[in-house]
Amino acid sequence: MKAYEIQNFGLENLALIDRPDPKPGPNQVLVKMHAWSLNYRDLLTATGRYNPRLKLPQIPLSDGAGEIVEVGAGVQGFKAGDRVANTFFERWVSGAETEEAARTALGAGRDGVLAEFVALHEDGVIPIPEHLTYAEAATLPCAALTTWNALVVEGKIKAGDTILTLGTGGVSIFALQFALLNGSQVIVTSSSDEKLAKARQLGAGHTINYKQIPAWSKQVRQLTGGRGVDHVVEVGGTGTFNQSIASLKRGGHISLIGVLAQGGEVNIMPVLMNNIRVQGIFVGSREMFSSMNAAIAFHRLRPVIDRTFGFEEAAEAFRLMESAKHFGKICISR
Amino acid sequence: MKAYEIQNFGLENLALIDRPDPKPGPNQVLVKMHAWSLNYRDLLTATGRYNPRLKLPQIPLSDGAGEIVEVGAGVQGFKAGDRVANTFFERWVSGAETEEAARTALGAGRDGVLAEFVALHEDGVIPIPEHLTYAEAATLPCAALTTWNALVVEGKIKAGDTILTLGTGGVSIFALQFALLNGSQVIVTSSSDEKLAKARQLGAGHTINYKQIPAWSKQVRQLTGGRGVDHVVEVGGTGTFNQSIASLKRGGHISLIGVLAQGGEVNIMPVLMNNIRVQGIFVGSREMFSSMNAAIAFHRLRPVIDRTFGFEEAAEAFRLMESAKHFGKICISR
Amino acid sequence: MKAYEIQNFGLENLALIDRPDPKPGPNQVLVKMHAWSLNYRDLLTATGRYNPRLKLPQIPLSDGAGEIVEVGAGVQGFKAGDRVANTFFERWVSGAETEEAARTALGAGRDGVLAEFVALHEDGVIPIPEHLTYAEAATLPCAALTTWNALVVEGKIKAGDTILTLGTGGVSIFALQFALLNGSQVIVTSSSDEKLAKARQLGAGHTINYKQIPAWSKQVRQLTGGRGVDHVVEVGGTGTFNQSIASLKRGGHISLIGVLAQGGEVNIMPVLMNNIRVQGIFVGSREMFSSMNAAIAFHRLRPVIDRTFGFEEAAEAFRLMESAKHFGKICISR
Amino acid sequence: MKAYEIQNFGLENLALIDRPDPKPGPNQVLVKMHAWSLNYRDLLTATGRYNPRLKLPQIPLSDGAGEIVEVGAGVQGFKAGDRVANTFFERWVSGAETEEAARTALGAGRDGVLAEFVALHEDGVIPIPEHLTYAEAATLPCAALTTWNALVVEGKIKAGDTILTLGTGGVSIFALQFALLNGSQVIVTSSSDEKLAKARQLGAGHTINYKQIPAWSKQVRQLTGGRGVDHVVEVGGTGTFNQSIASLKRGGHISLIGVLAQGGEVNIMPVLMNNIRVQGIFVGSREMFSSMNAAIAFHRLRPVIDRTFGFEEAAEAFRLMESAKHFGKICISR
Repeated sequence: MKAYEIQNFGLENLALIDRPDPKPGPNQVLVKMHAWSLNYRDLLTATGRYNPRLKLPQIPLSDGAGEIVEVGAGVQGFKAGDRVANTFFERWVSGAETEEAARTALGAGRDGVLAEFVALHEDGVIPIPEHLTYAEAATLPCAALTTWNALVVEGKIKAGDTILTLGTGGVSIFALQFALLNGSQVIVTSSSDEKLAKARQLGAGHTINYKQIPAWSKQVRQLTGGRGVDHVVEVGGTGTFNQSIASLKRGGHISLIGVLAQGGEVNIMPVLMNNIRVQGIFVGSREMFSSMNAAIAFHRLRPVIDRTFGFEEAAEAFRLMESAKHFGKICISR
Repeated sequence: MKAYEIQNFGLENLALIDRPDPKPGPNQVLVKMHAWSLNYRDLLTATGRYNPRLKLPQIPLSDGAGEIVEVGAGVQGFKAGDRVANTFFERWVSGAETEEAARTALGAGRDGVLAEFVALHEDGVIPIPEHLTYAEAATLPCAALTTWNALVVEGKIKAGDTILTLGTGGVSIFALQFALLNGSQVIVTSSSDEKLAKARQLGAGHTINYKQIPAWSKQVRQLTGGRGVDHVVEVGGTGTFNQSIASLKRGGHISLIGVLAQGGEVNIMPVLMNNIRVQGIFVGSREMFSSMNAAIAFHRLRPVIDRTFGFEEAAEAFRLMESAKHFGKICISR
Repeated sequence: MKAYEIQNFGLENLALIDRPDPKPGPNQVLVKMHAWSLNYRDLLTATGRYNPRLKLPQIPLSDGAGEIVEVGAGVQGFKAGDRVANTFFERWVSGAETEEAARTALGAGRDGVLAEFVALHEDGVIPIPEHLTYAEAATLPCAALTTWNALVVEGKIKAGDTILTLGTGGVSIFALQFALLNGSQVIVTSSSDEKLAKARQLGAGHTINYKQIPAWSKQVRQLTGGRGVDHVVEVGGTGTFNQSIASLKRGGHISLIGVLAQGGEVNIMPVLMNNIRVQGIFVGSREMFSSMNAAIAFHRLRPVIDRTFGFEEAAEAFRLMESAKHFGKICISR
Repeated sequence: MKAYEIQNFGLENLALIDRPDPKPGPNQVLVKMHAWSLNYRDLLTATGRYNPRLKLPQIPLSDGAGEIVEVGAGVQGFKAGDRVANTFFERWVSGAETEEAARTALGAGRDGVLAEFVALHEDGVIPIPEHLTYAEAATLPCAALTTWNALVVEGKIKAGDTILTLGTGGVSIFALQFALLNGSQVIVTSSSDEKLAKARQLGAGHTINYKQIPAWSKQVRQLTGGRGVDHVVEVGGTGTFNQSIASLKRGGHISLIGVLAQGGEVNIMPVLMNNIRVQGIFVGSREMFSSMNAAIAFHRLRPVIDRTFGFEEAAEAFRLMESAKHFGKICISR
């Protein structure tokens, strides 16, 4: 089969190679992959910034969707023909994340899914909502589930809450969509008026261009009558953390998501003085994925895809991620 | 001022009388009432079925809305001209309900609000969303808040959940509306196809005529792919409890609300076997009212009022409640 | 191997028979059983009252402990020589209970563990605290875990809370012990002064002989300064439910546990009026078992065993259960 | 009456002066103070490091206990002769903390309690457990309640959990005591072997001298079988934050308490990767105080007081705090 390998760090070392077709072992399913999506973690991994000691070569990407073509011995939940996405952690089914579960993350330390065929434990795949294309379904395993975990599972947002989301990448646009699904209102920041206009079209109630308003946390407080927002989805890192905290109401929640920018000093004193909760979010369990899918299916929600590349254009997909010019998710399809 | 009194049990003993105008004491506000709403509890109270030993005469009704016309010494949160609703409990501000708070329920043991003027502790009133009429705001203190507490505070419903609500009275229609606000889907039961049609217009995904389908819990399971619903808002009482439990998914929640029909045997064995949670709900705190109002204001939700009677027609309002012909809330206005 | 079978309903039809030695399949471990414990459910099952349509013959009992003697292909968490208990549900690892998990309960519908050897999925066994004998460990899978789930997982009891536990059977004595471990105080009821004296020795703060004080809920309120208890562990059934509810504080919790006595009418009105939570508890997950074991190990808690029978005396063990003369758990050992 | 004033920043400017005796206004109680306790915040406040723009003069200290000698109009919950402590926030009764509640913190911006008489809203005092001396009760409003909120309310610790507490100041020793009350085990760090010996006498299971073992987080992991602790009570600030995070299990909780050391860089990346929850804790509500008192009373827990100074020796008390030589709380009594 065809597959991509990170042979050395650097996007120029992403190679389309041949590997033997995998066979499904006991309790495994074999998935013919139709689509994939990229996360910022994938870019960091491929360029050596996520884990400089990563053993190479390695197949990149944690997210994909396809069709089951064969099931191994003992598989009970799936049959050939089922449309599935893989899960970010092959073996985090439910409950609290264990160390063992954490070690089953795909695409950084273990081979990822950017290959024609992938064999995974049946716990590592999940049926996808009928109305989604494979490319749309491929956006769910990391970015969507992380956001669902942040806002719905840990954040327990409800109708009438106000959510602040930073930027317009994959997680941030899912934050906008999931907040709206749950009846919350949303404030979005970006440096691009064009992206902010798109966010408003998707339902954002307020938008802030942080280039024009560098002290955007003051603007957020103003927009919330001085009270602050209920929840911040923080993907920006140390550069935004202090203003994110300043945007929160007393007793508010902030989800730490994604890979934070390096350097800079974080002041945790206001966290204490305002009874703030900071919750680290590293994707989520299959059980959460299942309830997210129920919401996506009921609302026929469509993930926002900036662009879908061909299988042979994988490096281009990584370069778009690097450019940060995208709005929503970047996909690959075949 | 004019006020109504239950002078003896029975709707024929509801008398429009004169009482001295109340004056706001320390920490009290004086509200000129513009509208009221009825709950089934008010009918039971007036007819002696809620508490046969109730000391009479007593002013009926727990729910109303109006305008503050005077504030007493020490009042900090309000001024004349503020549009407010009263709270069901005059002194349940936040946190867990205390015995002291429980004793401040209006309209059954303490005078209610069906009077031209009412003096209440400032903790006992709350600003109302701007887009609501007084009659609409008067539907909030008991029926709406009870439902919000059941679904949002205790039930923690989320996008994609499925809610079952029984009948089309005040609580049930708020359950439909609040479930939709939070992205959940709703199944409604009624004995009237006409009412079910209205429920569908309001957004109910599925409706069941329980006269035509007496074993409606089987229908509910079928509609949910055999799984059962996430949450039941139970207002029907012992006549429906067993089927409500049978409609729930494993680990599901059922809110016990309102005044249950007498008699009949309740089988609690399935509660145990299916890890069901049964949560008694007796209205809610002012803090919950505040977050409910945020949701109502943001979504510009309009409570469903079946009919609004004039102040002189109060007994007619009670009789409509007794007939059970209404859909949504019954109001009085002047 | 030797094993017991329920060949027909009735304790006289409990037969010690020979069955082929089981072999561990993929992902299974083979356990040489050393000890077992009985629950009231086992008595009901053997006498046809739990499920009259149960397919016979069937090996009884859900609870046991022993030593792993062989592991099947793919087993990762265990090796021969490991001391383990089985779990009540062979496949409820963590998170919410699914229908699939519920179907893996042992001893009623599927063969139980009263046999010399048992082959189970590795998810269906768990290491036992070092300080426990096999008989002590055999008390954990159903009675202890149910109680832990009720008080700690769902009940979230804390230091200073007051717990009411009814009677002195297996669950009730674990409720006493686990409440004390978590710093709570305990009130115990029984019809036997002798058993109540034992409960006080174990640390019960107050005891009530319900034969001498039939209106024991009033006594409970008196003992709590009129306030009522925080949590009731209800194992008595419809005969005690109403008084249990009357013993609770406003907003209190009651766990429904075990198999309730038949008949009698349950009044759910006070559940509503006092914001009571009724939580059905049907054992618990392996993840809960693990945190329970951590507490048992740290405190070197010893389960209370009334009597341990020899493997050949299994019917005697059932008869002691039937007599209700025991205090704590009834075990079998070889 | 006699009272202390911070007249200018610096302990040398703490002056014992005369002020008119306060009178209880409506809803207020007048407390004759018998004892006080110090928190690190009081030292920072008096020396201008907590809020350099604090309006002076101001009476210091947030914590005290005494006897009610007079009640104002409308007071319902108290009478002369009642033994009470004040609450840190005069008006945070229950539920979520509001901005209004936050502004009622005593001793930094509003006059504190280091005076012979203090008049407070009746919501701002609480009955104290009978077995406590006034000095012991004076330790509760800030340090004890903060710790209770951290471990019990937000942390939901349970029997068998492992808690790490840093140092041996007031909060840390309460963390040790409350963790033990709730059946948890405790690891304590300090730079003093003598203090660690005292901590072991109080029940600490493990102690670490962080001078001898600068990489103490590795030691913590070793002591927990590689898994990490369930909860860290972080009072040390930026100097310890990174190691505290490294001491936590996946999905663990860390409470940010007290006033953190200035400077230094905090790395929040591991918070994300390990699904850590960081919870800012700024004291707690009167409702929490009440449940803490129930636990203290039931267990007859005695707060650990390092030394009690006379009323005239207040400056000495501040200097002992400054020296950091104390173990547990520093009190003042008259």
